Amino acid sequence: MNGLLDTAQKIKTMEIRGAGRIARAAASALKGFALNIDSKTLEEFNVEVNKAAQILLDTRPTAVSLYNAVMMVIRYKAGSVEEARAAVAANANQFIDNSNKAVEKIGEIGSRRIRSGDTILTHCNSMAAITVISSSHKAGKDIRVIATESRPRCQGLLTIAMLNELGIDTTLIVDSAVRSVMNTVDLVVVGADVVTANGSLVNKIGTSQVALCAYEARTPFMAAAETYKFSPKTLMGEMVPIEERSPDEIATDISNLKHIKIFNPGFDVTPHRYIDMICTEVGAIPPEMSYMIIKEKLGWEMDSIS
Amino acid sequence: MNGLLDTAQKIKTMEIRGAGRIARAAASALKGFALNIDSKTLEEFNVEVNKAAQILLDTRPTAVSLYNAVMMVIRYKAGSVEEARAAVAANANQFIDNSNKAVEKIGEIGSRRIRSGDTILTHCNSMAAITVISSSHKAGKDIRVIATESRPRCQGLLTIAMLNELGIDTTLIVDSAVRSVMNTVDLVVVGADVVTANGSLVNKIGTSQVALCAYEARTPFMAAAETYKFSPKTLMGEMVPIEERSPDEIATDISNLKHIKIFNPGFDVTPHRYIDMICTEVGAIPPEMSYMIIKEKLGWEMDSIS
Amino acid sequence: MNGLLDTAQKIKTMEIRGAGRIARAAASALKGFALNIDSKTLEEFNVEVNKAAQILLDTRPTAVSLYNAVMMVIRYKAGSVEEARAAVAANANQFIDNSNKAVEKIGEIGSRRIRSGDTILTHCNSMAAITVISSSHKAGKDIRVIATESRPRCQGLLTIAMLNELGIDTTLIVDSAVRSVMNTVDLVVVGADVVTANGSLVNKIGTSQVALCAYEARTPFMAAAETYKFSPKTLMGEMVPIEERSPDEIATDISNLKHIKIFNPGFDVTPHRYIDMICTEVGAIPPEMSYMIIKEKLGWEMDSIS
Amino acid sequence: MNGLLDTAQKIKTMEIRGAGRIARAAASALKGFALNIDSKTLEEFNVEVNKAAQILLDTRPTAVSLYNAVMMVIRYKAGSVEEARAAVAANANQFIDNSNKAVEKIGEIGSRRIRSGDTILTHCNSMAAITVISSSHKAGKDIRVIATESRPRCQGLLTIAMLNELGIDTTLIVDSAVRSVMNTVDLVVVGADVVTANGSLVNKIGTSQVALCAYEARTPFMAAAETYKFSPKTLMGEMVPIEERSPDEIATDISNLKHIKIFNPGFDVTPHRYIDMICTEVGAIPPEMSYMIIKEKLGWEMDSIS
Amino acid sequence: MNGLLDTAQKIKTMEIRGAGRIARAAASALKGFALNIDSKTLEEFNVEVNKAAQILLDTRPTAVSLYNAVMMVIRYKAGSVEEARAAVAANANQFIDNSNKAVEKIGEIGSRRIRSGDTILTHCNSMAAITVISSSHKAGKDIRVIATESRPRCQGLLTIAMLNELGIDTTLIVDSAVRSVMNTVDLVVVGADVVTANGSLVNKIGTSQVALCAYEARTPFMAAAETYKFSPKTLMGEMVPIEERSPDEIATDISNLKHIKIFNPGFDVTPHRYIDMICTEVGAIPPEMSYMIIKEKLGWEMDSIS
Amino acid sequence: MNGLLDTAQKIKTMEIRGAGRIARAAASALKGFALNIDSKTLEEFNVEVNKAAQILLDTRPTAVSLYNAVMMVIRYKAGSVEEARAAVAANANQFIDNSNKAVEKIGEIGSRRIRSGDTILTHCNSMAAITVISSSHKAGKDIRVIATESRPRCQGLLTIAMLNELGIDTTLIVDSAVRSVMNTVDLVVVGADVVTANGSLVNKIGTSQVALCAYEARTPFMAAAETYKFSPKTLMGEMVPIEERSPDEIATDISNLKHIKIFNPGFDVTPHRYIDMICTEVGAIPPEMSYMIIKEKLGWEMDSIS
Repeated sequence: MNGLLDTAQKIKTMEIRGAGRIARAAASALKGFALNIDSKTLEEFNVEVNKAAQILLDTRPTAVSLYNAVMMVIRYKAGSVEEARAAVAANANQFIDNSNKAVEKIGEIGSRRIRSGDTILTHCNSMAAITVISSSHKAGKDIRVIATESRPRCQGLLTIAMLNELGIDTTLIVDSAVRSVMNTVDLVVVGADVVTANGSLVNKIGTSQVALCAYEARTPFMAAAETYKFSPKTLMGEMVPIEERSPDEIATDISNLKHIKIFNPGFDVTPHRYIDMICTEVGAIPPEMSYMIIKEKLGWEMDSIS
Repeated sequence: MNGLLDTAQKIKTMEIRGAGRIARAAASALKGFALNIDSKTLEEFNVEVNKAAQILLDTRPTAVSLYNAVMMVIRYKAGSVEEARAAVAANANQFIDNSNKAVEKIGEIGSRRIRSGDTILTHCNSMAAITVISSSHKAGKDIRVIATESRPRCQGLLTIAMLNELGIDTTLIVDSAVRSVMNTVDLVVVGADVVTANGSLVNKIGTSQVALCAYEARTPFMAAAETYKFSPKTLMGEMVPIEERSPDEIATDISNLKHIKIFNPGFDVTPHRYIDMICTEVGAIPPEMSYMIIKEKLGWEMDSIS
Repeated sequence: MNGLLDTAQKIKTMEIRGAGRIARAAASALKGFALNIDSKTLEEFNVEVNKAAQILLDTRPTAVSLYNAVMMVIRYKAGSVEEARAAVAANANQFIDNSNKAVEKIGEIGSRRIRSGDTILTHCNSMAAITVISSSHKAGKDIRVIATESRPRCQGLLTIAMLNELGIDTTLIVDSAVRSVMNTVDLVVVGADVVTANGSLVNKIGTSQVALCAYEARTPFMAAAETYKFSPKTLMGEMVPIEERSPDEIATDISNLKHIKIFNPGFDVTPHRYIDMICTEVGAIPPEMSYMIIKEKLGWEMDSIS
Repeated sequence: MNGLLDTAQKIKTMEIRGAGRIARAAASALKGFALNIDSKTLEEFNVEVNKAAQILLDTRPTAVSLYNAVMMVIRYKAGSVEEARAAVAANANQFIDNSNKAVEKIGEIGSRRIRSGDTILTHCNSMAAITVISSSHKAGKDIRVIATESRPRCQGLLTIAMLNELGIDTTLIVDSAVRSVMNTVDLVVVGADVVTANGSLVNKIGTSQVALCAYEARTPFMAAAETYKFSPKTLMGEMVPIEERSPDEIATDISNLKHIKIFNPGFDVTPHRYIDMICTEVGAIPPEMSYMIIKEKLGWEMDSIS
Repeated sequence: MNGLLDTAQKIKTMEIRGAGRIARAAASALKGFALNIDSKTLEEFNVEVNKAAQILLDTRPTAVSLYNAVMMVIRYKAGSVEEARAAVAANANQFIDNSNKAVEKIGEIGSRRIRSGDTILTHCNSMAAITVISSSHKAGKDIRVIATESRPRCQGLLTIAMLNELGIDTTLIVDSAVRSVMNTVDLVVVGADVVTANGSLVNKIGTSQVALCAYEARTPFMAAAETYKFSPKTLMGEMVPIEERSPDEIATDISNLKHIKIFNPGFDVTPHRYIDMICTEVGAIPPEMSYMIIKEKLGWEMDSIS
Repeated sequence: MNGLLDTAQKIKTMEIRGAGRIARAAASALKGFALNIDSKTLEEFNVEVNKAAQILLDTRPTAVSLYNAVMMVIRYKAGSVEEARAAVAANANQFIDNSNKAVEKIGEIGSRRIRSGDTILTHCNSMAAITVISSSHKAGKDIRVIATESRPRCQGLLTIAMLNELGIDTTLIVDSAVRSVMNTVDLVVVGADVVTANGSLVNKIGTSQVALCAYEARTPFMAAAETYKFSPKTLMGEMVPIEERSPDEIATDISNLKHIKIFNPGFDVTPHRYIDMICTEVGAIPPEMSYMIIKEKLGWEMDSIS
């Protein structure tokens, strides 16, 4: 239990952060927990595992990758404690393995959509999106990247550092300049925080403006998303909460301006009609097919969530 | 001549800056010049005035307000040196007077489009746009403003300071959050750097994205523009040059990133189909009517520019 | 003065109603007044005429046809009382004459856009729109009409009665069925209450939905509008007030439903981008050219209205 | 057999009406029939059940809920008469049970998309749509409703009576005023008569105009549809017949107008591109996923219908 | 009279063809006629000139350039036969001169919209459009052209021959490939047969598809049109007749296919909303400003045409 | 082996051509090969069959029908050589049978979307599209067809010959006239070369322009596609190669034009948002459901392709 509580604490305090790392840490913790508990009966074992799962879920109730990892690990059929223990371990191993390979696989699949000579625009700093780009670069394609600054936290600076490391010619622009350059762009690639059951993309604030500009200019728009980013609960109508972040990320010195507030949403929602394709580690699909990921890869079906 | 050269120098070095201030300074300098030159013949006078005008025009060849001011001052018909001198002075006085009153008049006209209860979004820091907002506030309407940060130079911070001073409740957002809030906005009001003969708006980078988001959500979009912002030369096909500003405005520490460049356009172009109305000091018109401003207020006609 | 007061009273009590009839009655009353006043000086005459004009304007402050009629009658330059008196009479006669001929002329011009075999859809009950239709019918073209019911006051029933009288095959539909039939329609023709300086059309509630459905299906949309329907004041930013009419027009028996209100706007606003052409008695123009009507036919210019 | 014939008669004469009630009555009748027939062999039993099914289907050949109910009841695999009998009864019970719970479940799922402070627009009178609204009201959310009159039969009056009973503040408008109010609406919720395999929505006349207005203003549009409203036959290309209803619903006194006809379609078709989400009792899906409902919940697959 | 009849005959038999050549020939013929007639009175002279004008107009009743040329030549005010004679000659000279210079001037104005590095797409074979392209090439800009085949008469082959002669790198495509290449195009430039009062462009069949594809991809679309291509009559509602040309242009061997017809419209209509700019010899305007050309350059006003 | 090599040769040299014929020939060749090889072990048999399959695949590496046929024939589970042999034969028989019946079945399903009185537009020469049309004609519906010429190879001439034979009234137009006639069209039906996993349609050059024109005019657009036209590999991101065909198809005599090239793409890509329905032999689906065809009918799943 200590290991699990320790992991839970680290997720809560954001010592462990990033959708993938959180998910894999939770799966690993559940496996460790299951291998070590000393339940006499299967019922007892199941109760213990569910308690442990709940502890993890409570650390970040809105983190979809955490939810998916936990649910995939504790979904098993077993006739004995030993079978159950083995199933939890096997589920955790498989989730961790798939998750580790996901980004590379997404890069492989997504990079097929890039042709030599293309200019690719990306927003914020997504490993999946960058891997799509770097895979095509490594495959010898002659490409050019435009990266947005991504205010307020300027993750675009991370992106250009990574792309520079990879030796890919990149131009940095402010977020407001996206429409100005869009007619020179051949493909937009972004990452994903959450993909909903009806194909909407929840991602870094500004993503939906980029998508709208791409749509206006007939430029294809691809989201790169590991399957654990898809939200089963949205199938049951649940809305994805949009985190409102600290005003300090935008301006720190407005306390004397008594009529002024700052609104700092961390994410926005891109409607499926502006998305040409969602590239996952199991294939590239139209956004309207998100349910098939939720069903086939995450194991949820319509009406299976209370 | 010294006064004129002095003004020219100050415009060139940007000691005098801002479209309106530049225009008025140039008109004033031409008037001073005309009142003091000692030409014997009308031809001589005309030649001198035209030389002086050219000196001023050469300081900022792409500044449309400067061009309009100079052209309006030196357009006269006269039978004698004295008549010409008087005409230049009268033209200059009238231009300066109109220019000084323009923003207030725009505020008066534009504020009629705002209803009590409205939320108005503005981008960058335009006196004309702010006056539209403040006029409706002063008229007792209960309004709320959303102001964008306006990277890279963050003129939005100037805007919120001004609105705070006026006691108007305002929310600051990053440029990327415009689409997120657009469904709560009743009217977008922005300023103008240049309005072209076919009704396009050249304004602060990001304006065209704001307009696109407004169009997508059926939110009216108004540009507030003094008539001296309209460009006669665009009637003859001339394109408005988009200033590329220093990379340092965006990031100062990328010299070690050899694959990275920064592209920092200062302005973008909003097509007329996303603009519902251009509010000038002489009336509110659809953007397609820009030629009428150029013709009736600036005195240019089709095929009159060589 | 009695005649003028009598007319003013009849306009106020809606004994005289209809945009054209109101306008002509006001012009006539001003003429009668001017012919009979006994002013000694031109100043006195002018003051009297302006007082009389104001009395008429105050009867229906938002009626644009009344405003245009009064303004056109009292716009004169005169050197003597007699010249002024004659000018008022001449202005009134000309306005009345033009107004009387306007609908017929609109019919003549508009009907040229209808081809034999066409199906025309109309909304509400506009004489100008019906005359466009009947002119093409009288010209021997084989046409068919679809008329909407036009809730809440069901003016569509007047329209079908008129079209039946003219012998034109017509189908009546509810307002909600417009989109269902739009793919079979070749032209939409509606009337106008007000046309604004930026080409928006204020007309019977539902018009903007018809226009949106026409736009979606690439069906041309024509508004038929006498020039006195164009509003000079909108040039100065003034919004056209949308009359909210009695709830009783929709339902009379909801007093016991304490959570229920009725909202009954009489008109809506069709944006210029859904209007292909405005057909006036002086020609067919794109909506963006409305200023030219206001300038050339109504005598107003940008910045001439305080 | 008498019970079944009696039910068939009541469906035919519309004594039993409403998609859900018809479906449950048919399922119940088939169950009663199956429990009482005295077939010796399974073949005989099957033949009898199919005959009974056909009798029911013939009462309303275009009612999709009836078709779905009957098909779900008679789809069984059995090795004996008794097994078959039990299967029919079990199928009927399950269909009735699911159907009874469907609206409540839709309300639960759909209401998650409503936030406190929202204004919801609804058209016509759909129990599923109203339950989405009332569920969010019961959950303590502060909401406001706009209801359309829904000519010609004015089912909006039923809707406002129901919402009044529930204590929900509601505004009634004519169908033509939908576009006028759309910019103040946060969500549109309507019911469904039929959902097709390619995600089109067949619903009360006017629905597609409401959807078009919502799309124009970026307002989300949700259809609330029990799964038995989805039409398997449309998968095989079949078009949903649009009932043309009596002219008397629109006007009763036009017999003397010999050039006038009335066209009164009861329904219209909303294309999937204007629908953001279909909320069923088993989950909220994008309209393009309708096939998955037909396959997983109604038991039909591509090429399984002759 | 013989010279005029000869010219009329040549226009009728299409020995003289091309909008510009027809117009100049007619102007020249009228001048010749006026210089040689031997009228005693001004009335007589006017009658004769009008008869001559009518003879020319009757040769090609739908040719707008012919109409404009004739109308501009016979519009004069004169107090004597000699004054009238001189006016006709002066009008004719001016029209011919302007017309001759128009294409060059259009090239000069239009080429300002082309930047070095641009790819320009053109459709059919228009001297005005080609001159826009060649002017920018001659100005040293590095450009590339895509030319459509322009079935059925394959005028694209003329275009590539001309561009080859000019040394401009050009790619020929079939008309169906326009959308395929549009994302690589920076500007579309086409000519004009007729421009209507509401800004629609009547031009070679296929032009409106090119414009639609450009609009979809946010590629600017420019029409190059001499002012004599604008149609005053359309101001009065007149529709531009679309010539239906011989089936033989498409296929010559279908006489044995009794169920087959060929429809061969020579032109189509591009709506103003797909046109960014019309480039004339007197300036570049938005299409909605066409009335100003008709008024200021062709001398027609609203309601001046019976 | 000889039979298989012979078939391979004929496919390579295009003696066997057409998507369906190639696919059936390959299936048949594999069956013949399997029935005749003399492998001792199952492993040996499997190796031989896979080698044979590869030989066939190598003949036309981009032909999706060939790929689907081969993959469907060699997908089997077997415990012995004899079982494997039988499975290959059965798979081949089933594929051939389904393929042979597919077009007829598509005609049956698709024709249900056509109503008597409809005008149908088709592009190029597709048996599936023509069968949709002819099935409705044979069902007694009164229809009219518009067929495009389909440059450069003018397959429209084949189409009109076929439709003439069937006695269906047809009008031939050039490809550029599609937009001109679109408002008179009730349904567009075209064939398919490839359908991708995200619902895009790869078909004869010009198809995407037809689809865009249909979308603009709210005219439904149907693609008729046998299931073997769907590409499983696109699920893994693979792009469909667009064949660039010989310049000679467009013009043969440009060798002396040294600045001129010809670009002759054989196909273009229609995005799913312009496609209302894809009609296959197993049902009519929205394009976004293409994955379900790939999964259920072609036997591929997400992440099953390396």
